[in-house]
Formats: sequence, C-alpha cells, structure tokens
Amino acid sequence: MILTQTLLDFFKESRKHTENISAPLEIEDYVVQPMADVSPPKWHLGHTTWFFEEFILKKHKRDYQVFDVDFSFVFNSYYESVGKRVVRSDRGNLSRPSVQKVYEYRNYVTMAIQNLFESTVDHELESLLEIGIHHEKQHQELLLTDIKYILGNNPLLPKYANTYKEHPNESTSCEWIEIEEGIYDIGHNSESFCYDNELGQHKVYLHAYQISSTLVTNGEYLEFINTGGYRHFGYWHADGWEWVNTNQIIAPQYWHLIDGSWQYYTLKGLRHIEPNAPVTHLSYYEAFAFAQWKGMRLPTEFEWEAAQEHFSWGQRWEWTESAYLPYPNYTKAAGALGEYNGKFMVNQKVLRGGSIATPNKHTRPTYRNFFPPSVRWQYTGLRLVK
Amino acid sequence: MILTQTLLDFFKESRKHTENISAPLEIEDYVVQPMADVSPPKWHLGHTTWFFEEFILKKHKRDYQVFDVDFSFVFNSYYESVGKRVVRSDRGNLSRPSVQKVYEYRNYVTMAIQNLFESTVDHELESLLEIGIHHEKQHQELLLTDIKYILGNNPLLPKYANTYKEHPNESTSCEWIEIEEGIYDIGHNSESFCYDNELGQHKVYLHAYQISSTLVTNGEYLEFINTGGYRHFGYWHADGWEWVNTNQIIAPQYWHLIDGSWQYYTLKGLRHIEPNAPVTHLSYYEAFAFAQWKGMRLPTEFEWEAAQEHFSWGQRWEWTESAYLPYPNYTKAAGALGEYNGKFMVNQKVLRGGSIATPNKHTRPTYRNFFPPSVRWQYTGLRLVK
Amino acid sequence: MILTQTLLDFFKESRKHTENISAPLEIEDYVVQPMADVSPPKWHLGHTTWFFEEFILKKHKRDYQVFDVDFSFVFNSYYESVGKRVVRSDRGNLSRPSVQKVYEYRNYVTMAIQNLFESTVDHELESLLEIGIHHEKQHQELLLTDIKYILGNNPLLPKYANTYKEHPNESTSCEWIEIEEGIYDIGHNSESFCYDNELGQHKVYLHAYQISSTLVTNGEYLEFINTGGYRHFGYWHADGWEWVNTNQIIAPQYWHLIDGSWQYYTLKGLRHIEPNAPVTHLSYYEAFAFAQWKGMRLPTEFEWEAAQEHFSWGQRWEWTESAYLPYPNYTKAAGALGEYNGKFMVNQKVLRGGSIATPNKHTRPTYRNFFPPSVRWQYTGLRLVK
Amino acid sequence: MILTQTLLDFFKESRKHTENISAPLEIEDYVVQPMADVSPPKWHLGHTTWFFEEFILKKHKRDYQVFDVDFSFVFNSYYESVGKRVVRSDRGNLSRPSVQKVYEYRNYVTMAIQNLFESTVDHELESLLEIGIHHEKQHQELLLTDIKYILGNNPLLPKYANTYKEHPNESTSCEWIEIEEGIYDIGHNSESFCYDNELGQHKVYLHAYQISSTLVTNGEYLEFINTGGYRHFGYWHADGWEWVNTNQIIAPQYWHLIDGSWQYYTLKGLRHIEPNAPVTHLSYYEAFAFAQWKGMRLPTEFEWEAAQEHFSWGQRWEWTESAYLPYPNYTKAAGALGEYNGKFMVNQKVLRGGSIATPNKHTRPTYRNFFPPSVRWQYTGLRLVK
Repeated sequence: MILTQTLLDFFKESRKHTENISAPLEIEDYVVQPMADVSPPKWHLGHTTWFFEEFILKKHKRDYQVFDVDFSFVFNSYYESVGKRVVRSDRGNLSRPSVQKVYEYRNYVTMAIQNLFESTVDHELESLLEIGIHHEKQHQELLLTDIKYILGNNPLLPKYANTYKEHPNESTSCEWIEIEEGIYDIGHNSESFCYDNELGQHKVYLHAYQISSTLVTNGEYLEFINTGGYRHFGYWHADGWEWVNTNQIIAPQYWHLIDGSWQYYTLKGLRHIEPNAPVTHLSYYEAFAFAQWKGMRLPTEFEWEAAQEHFSWGQRWEWTESAYLPYPNYTKAAGALGEYNGKFMVNQKVLRGGSIATPNKHTRPTYRNFFPPSVRWQYTGLRLVK
Repeated sequence: MILTQTLLDFFKESRKHTENISAPLEIEDYVVQPMADVSPPKWHLGHTTWFFEEFILKKHKRDYQVFDVDFSFVFNSYYESVGKRVVRSDRGNLSRPSVQKVYEYRNYVTMAIQNLFESTVDHELESLLEIGIHHEKQHQELLLTDIKYILGNNPLLPKYANTYKEHPNESTSCEWIEIEEGIYDIGHNSESFCYDNELGQHKVYLHAYQISSTLVTNGEYLEFINTGGYRHFGYWHADGWEWVNTNQIIAPQYWHLIDGSWQYYTLKGLRHIEPNAPVTHLSYYEAFAFAQWKGMRLPTEFEWEAAQEHFSWGQRWEWTESAYLPYPNYTKAAGALGEYNGKFMVNQKVLRGGSIATPNKHTRPTYRNFFPPSVRWQYTGLRLVK
Repeated sequence: MILTQTLLDFFKESRKHTENISAPLEIEDYVVQPMADVSPPKWHLGHTTWFFEEFILKKHKRDYQVFDVDFSFVFNSYYESVGKRVVRSDRGNLSRPSVQKVYEYRNYVTMAIQNLFESTVDHELESLLEIGIHHEKQHQELLLTDIKYILGNNPLLPKYANTYKEHPNESTSCEWIEIEEGIYDIGHNSESFCYDNELGQHKVYLHAYQISSTLVTNGEYLEFINTGGYRHFGYWHADGWEWVNTNQIIAPQYWHLIDGSWQYYTLKGLRHIEPNAPVTHLSYYEAFAFAQWKGMRLPTEFEWEAAQEHFSWGQRWEWTESAYLPYPNYTKAAGALGEYNGKFMVNQKVLRGGSIATPNKHTRPTYRNFFPPSVRWQYTGLRLVK
Repeated sequence: MILTQTLLDFFKESRKHTENISAPLEIEDYVVQPMADVSPPKWHLGHTTWFFEEFILKKHKRDYQVFDVDFSFVFNSYYESVGKRVVRSDRGNLSRPSVQKVYEYRNYVTMAIQNLFESTVDHELESLLEIGIHHEKQHQELLLTDIKYILGNNPLLPKYANTYKEHPNESTSCEWIEIEEGIYDIGHNSESFCYDNELGQHKVYLHAYQISSTLVTNGEYLEFINTGGYRHFGYWHADGWEWVNTNQIIAPQYWHLIDGSWQYYTLKGLRHIEPNAPVTHLSYYEAFAFAQWKGMRLPTEFEWEAAQEHFSWGQRWEWTESAYLPYPNYTKAAGALGEYNGKFMVNQKVLRGGSIATPNKHTRPTYRNFFPPSVRWQYTGLRLVK
C-alpha cells in the first residue's frame, strides 16, 4: 500500500494525465462514438470521475453533495449493482452534458477527493482510491485508442498531434529464447497493487518451448498479406474466416492501399508502412492466422509470463493463445467492484505485456489484459513461439 | 421568377435563418445523430452550402476554387449522380470538419454566390438559386426537428430555448365542412416557385365528404390512449400493429408518463400536456388507428387540397391517406436535380399543410410533403374526414 | 348468390382442385419454407380447411367436434381475433401434423361441410361458404407459386410436372390503345361475388393515355438487362436501387446465366428463355425501372380497369403504379373476416389481371391483387402506358 | 488399429445404428431445421454417407461411379477444401433429395465400402474407415438431439418413442472426492482410436480440489430457479446475463411451467420433473451461474480427467470451465481432415464425459467435446468442484 501523501500525488498526476491526453482535441472530437466498442472521450472523462464519486465520495464523505444526480445514469459503464445506465451504443448520441460541464464535474470531484484524503487516514479508503486511480489509468489507454479510432475513421484523416510516436526506431534482431520444461509460478505475489484477476499465485507445468525475443514486424506481416494470407482459409479458425469474409478484411486496421502501396494512419497522420516497426492493430484471428502461416504458434499467457524477463515488452499488447479464465482460487471482490473482472471471463482472449498507449505504472509482468478475438483498435501485436 | 435583387435578399435572409435556428446550440449539439433519420445540425449547415457549391458555383462560376475537395464526400446527401458519399447513418460519427470550419464554409460559399449574382443575370442560374434557397428552407425544418430529437432524447432533457412556442393558445370549435361531389383541379398552376412533384395540374373526381375545420387535439388523443387504443389490434394496419409491438409504442413521441400523468418534451422543456393543443409527433399508423377508433378516416391529399381554403392550416403536417405517387404527366428534371423527388415515390405517405417549424414562404396549398408511415419526429398531426 | 346445390358443387370442385395441384409432390415437398413469404404446401392444405372449420362449422354446426384442438394454433394465418398462432416464419419448422394427418383433416371438414349444407338452407351460411371457397382459390395460386419457389430454389432444380405450360405460344403484335379523357366508373357493381376491397363503385377522372395491348416480353426485358438496366441508378426508385444492391439482383427471379446464355426455371424444369413470352417474376421495382428505361410508365389501377376490355389479360399479374388503398366508402366487414383485406392497405402496390396460376373463376376486371413492391415469386409482369 | 474384419463389422453395425435411430420418424421429420444448429435428419444420413464417398471411395476405389454429382454440394458440412456447399441454415429448405433417395445413397455407399474392404488390405484405408465410422457415431448423437429438438419444439409435442429412457432411476448420494495437488498426465496415450485434439499427452499441474461424485440434479436446480437464480445478475457472466435477457430464459431447455408446476419434454413426451434425475439441457452460462449460486465452481477439463476414474459418468455431457484450446504440440492432420477439429478452437467451451445419447464406444476419458457457451440442445449437465 502506498502511503497517503504519495497516493494523493499519484491521484493528482493521474487526473492531470487524462486531461493531457485530451488536450489536443476539438470539442467535437469529445462527442462521437463511431463504433460500439469506442466511447466518446467526454464519456471517459466523466466515467473515471463518477467512479470516485460513486464508490468513495457518496459512501464515505460526510454531507457530500452529488454534482448532478443524473450523471450516475449517464456515466455508469456496466455496474449492474449501481443501477440503470445509458446503453453502451448510445453514448455517442448524447450531446449533453457539455464538455465544459464534464470538466467542471472533474474538478469538483478531484477537489472533493483531495479534501477527503487530506483529512482522513483510512486503509479501506486508500485501497478504494488506489483502485480508482488504476481504473482511470486503464481508461487512459482506452481514451487514446478511442481517439485514434475517432480520427482514423474520419474520411478527412485529421492528425491528433504532430509529435506522437507510435513506435521506437531501433530494430533489434530476433533471437529464440529457450525455456525449459518444468513447474513455474504464475500470478501476482507482492504487496504492490494488482487486479483481482492476477491473484492466487499458483503453479503451472510448462513443456519446453522457444519464444521470440522480438515482436512480428510490418515487413513480415506484409509478406503474409502478399502471399495471400487473407485469401487462404487453411490458416484461419472457422470463426476467423467468417470474420474476414463478412467484414472483407484484407489488412490490419488503419492500413490503406493507396496507388498500389500500403500506408497507415498514425496519430501523426497518414504514413508509409515502416517495415521494421512491430505490426499492430491486429485481431486475435489475424495473429493466429499469421502464426499458422509461419508454421509456429502464439504463446499461452503462462509461457509468456514465464519467459517475459528474457525479452523487452511494452510496445504492443501481445495476443496469447489463452482464453481469459479465472486462476485457481480466484475470488470476486464483494459488491460492485466484484463486477470489475470476473463477469468477463468467457469469450475473451488474454493479451500480455503493454503498449505505447499504456500509461506509466499501469502494467506489470502478471497483468492480464483481455479482449474478444475480433477486436483490433487497441495497439495489439504478436510474438511467436515454436 | 423573382427578380435577381429580391432573390439575393431572399437568399441572404434564408442563409441567416439557418444560422439563427442553430444559434442556441452548444457545439456538442451540432455533432450527434441519435437515429439514422436525424442528421447532425452541422451536417445540415454543410449540406445546404454544398448544394450551392455543387450545382451553381462549380459549374457556373469562372475560376471558382472549391473550399475543400473532401467536402463533397462529406456533405452529399443522396445524389448518386454526383459521386460517393458518407453513408447516412455514419454522419454522426464524424467529429470533423469542426463546427467552426463548417461556418467558414458557409461564409465562403455565401459570399461566392453573392459575387456571382451581383455580376451576372441569367435565368437558368436564377432558377438554380431559387431551388437552392427552397432546398435550404426545407432543411431548416429538418434542422429544427432534428434538434428537438437530439435534445428530447437526451436523458437530461435540456431546453432549446425558453421562449419557443410549439402551438398557439387559441382553441377553436370544430366544424364539419361539406364538400360537394365533382371534378376538382389539383396541382400547382402559377408562375411562382414549386417543386416538380406539384406540377401537372390535373382533374380529380371527388365524392362528397365532410372535413373537420380543426386538427385532432391532445385531449381527444388522450381518450384514445385511455380507452386502450394502443392495445386493440382492430384499429391498426397489420404493419402498424407490428410497429406498435416491436417498438412498444404507448403514446406519441416525446410523451412521458410521470407519476401517473402525461407530460411531453417541448423545445422549452418538459411540460404538462395541453388538452386543447393539436396532437403532434404521431406516425401515420397512429393517425390511421385514431381515425378508425373514431369511426372516421383521414382525407386523401386531393380532398385536403380541394377543401383547404375553408380551414386554417400550418400548425401540424397532416397525414393523408394518399400514397406519394407521381401526378399524371409528371416528368423528372434532368440531371442530379431529377433525384430530388421522383426517386422517393414509393413506400411513403403524403402529408399536407405545414407546421410551426416550416419556414416562412416554404409551404403552399399544393405542397406535397412525404414520409414513410412509421416516422414521427416531424410536427405531424391529423384532421378527420367523414 | 349461387344456389346451394351449385355452391356445393363449386365447393367440392374447389377442394378437389387444391389436391390436384398437390398431387405431383413428394411428401418432403409439403414441409419446407425456403423464405418467409412462402408457406409449406401442407400448411395451405390445412389452413384452407381450418377456415371452413373456424368460421362455419364451429359456429354453425350443432355438436360439431373439432378435428384437433391444436390445429387452430397451427393453421391460423393472421386472424388476431381468433387467437394465438404459429409465427409465420416458423411454419417450415413443423414436421407435424404429418401430410397424411392433414389430408384426414381435409376429408373430415369437407364431409362436415357437405353434411351441413345438405341439411340447411341459410343465406348467411351460403355467403360464408362462398367466401371460404374463394379463399381457398386464392390459396391455390399461392400454393402453386410456393411450390415453384420450393423446387426452383433447390440446387437440384427438380421438375414439378412434365407438361405444365407457363405461357401460350402465340405472339401477338403490340398495339397502343387510346383511352379518352373523362370520368370512369371503377369498382364492382354486380350481384356476383367479390371481395370487400372492390366494393363501393365510384367515379374516377382519367386524363387521356395510351395503353399497350400486350405484355412486355422476355426479349424486350433482355434488352434492358443487356444495356445495363440493373447497373444504372437513374431508372430506379431509391428503395429499388437499395434492393438491387443489397440482394445483388441482375435478372428476374429464376433466371440463371449458364455458359453465357440465360435460362430460366419453369415448372417443367430448366429451359432457354423464350423471347416472345411475357416476362415474369419481376418485382414492382423492376417493372418500374423497365418502364423508366423505355421512357414510359405503368398504368394506374384505374387506367387498367378502364381499358381492360380492349386487350386480353390473365397470363401475368400486372404491376400498376397504384398503391393499395381503400376505395371511397370502403367499409371493413365485421368480425374476423374484416381482417381479410383492410389491414393490409399500406406499403403495398396493386396488381391487376390474373395469371396462368390463377384458378378458374377467381379473377375479374375489378379484382385487386396486392403485394409489397419487392416481391417476385408470383407470376408478375407488366404492361406499359404512354 | 482394429483388424479389417472387425472393422467392417464395426462399420456395418454403425451404419445400421444410424438407421435404427431414424426408424421411429415420419418422413416429414427428416426434413425440417427449426434452428441453424440443428440439421435435418436426412442431412445427417446423407452427410455421414458423403464422408465415406468423398474421402475413401472417390480417391481409392478404382472406377467408382459417384451416386449423384450434386450430392457433394448438398451434403458437405464445412470442408472448405472440398468445395462449395449449401449454407448451413438452408439445409432445412431442401425438400430434395427425398428421404428414399437418401436411403438409396446410403445403401449404395455402404455396399461400395464393403466391396472395397473385402478386396483390399491397406492400413491407410483402414485408418480412414475408422475415422469415418467415428464421424458417423458423432453424428448419431447429433441426430438424436436434433430429433429431440425437432419434436420438442413442435407445439404438438409428439413423442419419439414410448420407451426411450433419458436417465436411470437410481439416485446415489453425493460424495466429495479429494484430489491431491501435483502433476497429472493429460491426453490420449494408447494405440486405440482417438481424435487429433486428444493427442499429445502432456503434464498439467493441478492444485488440490474436491469434486462431486454426482451430477447436479433437477431438484437442486429447481431451488436455484425458485430462489431467483435467473433474475439476479450477480451469478452470471456479462455475456450470460445478456443471453438470459435477450432470450428471456427462465429454465433449462424443454421445461414448461404448466398450471404452476414444471414439466419437461422427453423423448417419451411431456413428463413431470424428476427431482433426482441429473439436470440437463443447460447452457454453459447456466451451469456457471448455478455453480456461482452454490458458492462453488465447475471443474477444468484437466481436473475432470484427473478425477474421472473416481466417479461414474456418461449420463450428461459435463460443462467444464476450460476453453477449447490446442494441447501442447497439437498438429492438425493434413488435407481436408485437418478441418475436423483445429479450426473450431476459439469461442467454445470443453465438455467432458458423455451422455445417454452418446453411441456405444464413442467416448473415453480423454474425449474432448466442445460447444459454444450458449448451446443447450445437447444432453448437457454439470458436476461441481470446491
């Protein structure tokens, strides 16, 4: 547990960071929702604020006046325990509350939290605050990837910022790291923060495998495209093949074939494909098909965790072969926070690592990210195992 | 044909009026599209501008520089002849161009039109300009009803303006006007402006009928609701009954049952139902069912037109029993403007009259409005015939 | 009104005719429903029987024992007044009652009706019986067109019969019949049987027009196809153009492009297109687009009725430009039979004439057939007006 | 490998068994497909036959004459390598080939296989034959559960047979079997037949757990229903909760609340719920929610396999917590048979054990059955772990 003063600094820094991410936006960019998975930026700003109000201020601050009684309806995401809420796909239909009103809400709640924590020392509250901060950090990544989707799907392809770098320049050579057969400890085990889905450290038996030190690159992926990877069903799951055909997928998200050569939309605008950069914005279906084409496979999340100290990671969320399931002895938290993770443990795949959009201090070797297999607006990528 | 100077004044007044309607909006309100039928206000602002650019400036102004080459893709509505365009239901997914940019576009085109017409006298151009002005007026009504939908479907139910009056106070007593059997002239017949679908004045034989001097009121409609009108299939078309059940319709659009009493959303905010005001925001299905329940029927558009000089109209668009079909000798205009009316002449019902949202000079006794039978976000109402 | 003995003969003949149409089927052909509009043949056999049981025997035959209490649920088509029923699109999911059981049901009810009418003389009953016979005749045409759909959409393209002739050989030359401007009487006016939607003879004013003495032929339609009729939006309604593109329509129903030449499925199996035969299995959208391409138009149902004595008709149902609407003074019958016609008077187009599938005595100059504009599994065709 | 003579007997017995299952059907029952997951019985009869023709006779029998060239299109299930095929959901739209023709096809192919194997000894062919027999056995279970669905969803609720027993009478008392922490061998390891997905025996580390010796019963499940299990979101996955609400699920498949008491449809017809019988026709979502309500969980497939020798199994397929994923070193078979299992390894859950519908010799401790989590027309059930 972080001491209160440090925690408050961490809180303030995190609140500020959300606003920094939003700073380059026009007001109009805060409002739209071009697909159901994406939320309007102002919704993220409001929802991360509502979380502190709902779970801390309303219950633990004496005489707290709710900023606006209707906001719980507007900014609840999926907490059935808390009451009714706007249907997810309707978030982009709400022009009000205005962006300015949402910023006022943020300030109001930020100040109220600061007041509360400057006058109270309480371990339970600190623990809730810590969850709230991590919750907001999780939304910071979604906020950025949602912004990319909002701008990158606009026919005008506007830039987010001139300087945003989606990957480093260095290219390192690929090596195969050998991991021995044996029993490995998996899961979180220290005093530091983690989500409930990482808890219950336990043993997993792994058979010997080799894992690549580097992520698959655009150059390698282009070869898959050029040799007909999207047209040969043999590389695909049945569901993946249907997904490819229904959606007429021929390349990763944000790739455009312009005058015969591939470009992609980045937060700096349209750019030529960089062959040495790690490929990104793939669905699990595509990651799997690429591995099949290579005659290799994706790692399980356990293989990834057991090997992760031998390679660098954090540029792309790495699809694993593992389904998102509870660890042995997993227990849901009580109350509304128990809805944070457990109820999603079906029909999703685990991603490990982190990405250039992941905020500082918001990933770790045991972190379990998860998405349905067709999703690709996150900075996803893959690493091979043989 | 209006003389050029008058026409230019008409143009300027009309351009200004669109902006006046939009003035009370927050920037966020310009962006959203809560259902496919509704367009974001900034789209209306851009589209009515694009119409002048596409059909007049690009073709008739020497050395005209298009404001932005991508705007044709963004602001074309349905003109197949003109090229590709944003899918209608995606209009609300576009945060850019920004509202400010759209206003710049408006000013740019408004000035260019003024320049052109100050230096040219050309009957063809004047005719195009006149169509463009009427086109913009048509969008002014949509703009206002779309704004009502955007605000009225927001759970916060924000007001548009404190002073907007959706109906006059006076209640007049209902009288039955008798119209004799005989041959009547239907359709537009003067030199003044009209759309192509009103042309081809022709004779229609009408049998004797009686038509009400007043519109059906909220009070009368409440009685229909209270006696189970929405629960008895016998009053409904088969398609209407399915529409009621699929959408769980129990009252006109914008009506809310709050603590046992009916209120409705108006542009001034939530209000108690006024029993003497004409009922509005009904689908054709509901108008038909109400008439069945009364043991009466809706007028045909011909009956309406033959009788209209005997009553006052213009508060509500009045559903008629007539399907939207071409008049004898109807001819589509050549080129893209031929897509204005003719291609919609199937699966729609005719509405006659006008509404409190209809801009000045934008309706007349021969005007044929049309919508699919399930639509109700316009200021629709009904008048009975027996 | 037909005298009872003749009526009973008419009844027996009609019951027999339904079974004759079904005679060439395999048991399996009685069961399937390859699209929602089509009903399984055994459903037609049962439903036409249920109609007599429900509206005559149950109410008017003393001590009548219902054949099977569950059959009302299975064989009711759309009579809300009569109670719950199998959802239309689920009819093809029911393997039971078996075909044999349905024939037993038919015999049981046929005998009961004969018993009843041999011992009773009652004008109301006779009138109900007459409606029941005409109802069955209406289903005979659907039965045959549904059989064509069931067999014609099977990849094995099985024949119905070796001898069935879908059109006569004679080709007659096209002439343009001139009809003068004036007032015409429209609607049914004799003592003989008609449906309620034909009643209320009334006057209609028609402007002068010329109507073709012949139906449009396959040869003419092929020219429309070959000159790109399905690829040029200008000929189509907006809804029609969307229908063409969504369903990738390139020719009338049952046409197959085999090795570069067009063939079509007939009840005798696959055949080369006969250029002089009247084109058939068109939607209204296609009929309209063809007429646009020709620079002509479809007749209204009034124009058709006023001119029909001057040409021969009955090979194809002829799409008209008219929407299906009530005649002046139309009154729905009381009770369940009131659901027969009135509730469908929206979103449908009128077809006039008859087709080679129409049973004997089941059409007349005032008969108003109706279908939604996208439907084409009936023997539809068109006649031009200019 | 089974010696040829025994294998041929096994083949003949298996072919006969499919026909025995179908014997009580009416011809009509062979044809329908009341939901996409279900196939018409005649399709199963044809498809299992086509499998032998396609993979053995066409390739390995000299001068083999295909029974009907169109049958490959009609009876291919999902083998992309083999060519085009009828869309799965259209199988129930095909009245032809007739049931009699399908039986002729079966006899033709059965004889051809017997001829081939009486005159040849070839290990590769024997191996293909063995796969074909197991493939048919797999379809025998689907055939029976599809028949149950076809009859059980018919409003007439016809019986399949008077004598079919869906569960034994004996009730055994529940005991908790303790399994120790440690390394366990998982997967198939003998010479006997198994599918490719069971191969690659490997080690799995299991933590200590207790597993019930008995399946959950109807009585226990009724308590879950009666205490509001279907109305409290806290027991459900987010996807499960949406499934419950969208489909308005309130009990297992085939349960009917009649006059306040629960009955269920069995192959012998409607029966009162037997409290001691193992509950069946649950989705994974329901099995999971029940376990949550009990404060317990489902076993993983590894826990099940490690413990299975300590309890009896085979009445119900048991949902496990495991997602269907490849074992380490899993390799797809080459060619079309490689499509048998591997391409389904996403979005599915593993079921272990077997059911009263599983044919003789067609399950084993390592057998991995799999279905999507919402499926419940199989004889599914559950066993708890704590």
